[in-house]
Amino acid sequence: MKVKVFVTLKSGVLDPQGKAIQHALGSLGFSGVDEVRQGKLIELNLEESDPGKAEASVRDMCEKLLANTVIENYRIELEG
Amino acid sequence: MKVKVFVTLKSGVLDPQGKAIQHALGSLGFSGVDEVRQGKLIELNLEESDPGKAEASVRDMCEKLLANTVIENYRIELEG
Repeated sequence: MKVKVFVTLKSGVLDPQGKAIQHALGSLGFSGVDEVRQGKLIELNLEESDPGKAEASVRDMCEKLLANTVIENYRIELEG
Repeated sequence: MKVKVFVTLKSGVLDPQGKAIQHALGSLGFSGVDEVRQGKLIELNLEESDPGKAEASVRDMCEKLLANTVIENYRIELEG
């Protein structure tokens, strides 16, 4: 089962990478762009085929490794 | 208009970050996980409200800055 995990910074947390992208876009002439935030996308393939167990397992991976839950949110998407 | 851009490595391209995550998951006791790939998620807010124009503009941003199209694919998602 293919799984996608989206890890994003919580809203109050400063995002210097996002700011750098926003600035670079401005320098390239793209105007009207703001609130640029950069996050991570982690794709993985699980042997587990039961969606409930797969999600529980991935949630556990997020809590333990994939996301820093002090400053980051995560969202899990199962692709069946 | 909120826009999400997903930047992922093309399939033939080595992904050491993904490998590191896969190895770390194994060390933590998560078995049956493979094909781990790490990509980027870039969220931005555009003043442009026309979906067609917004998508064209973001596609241009991807080609020029957000993705390295030699080794990366990108996907654009408009959130209206």
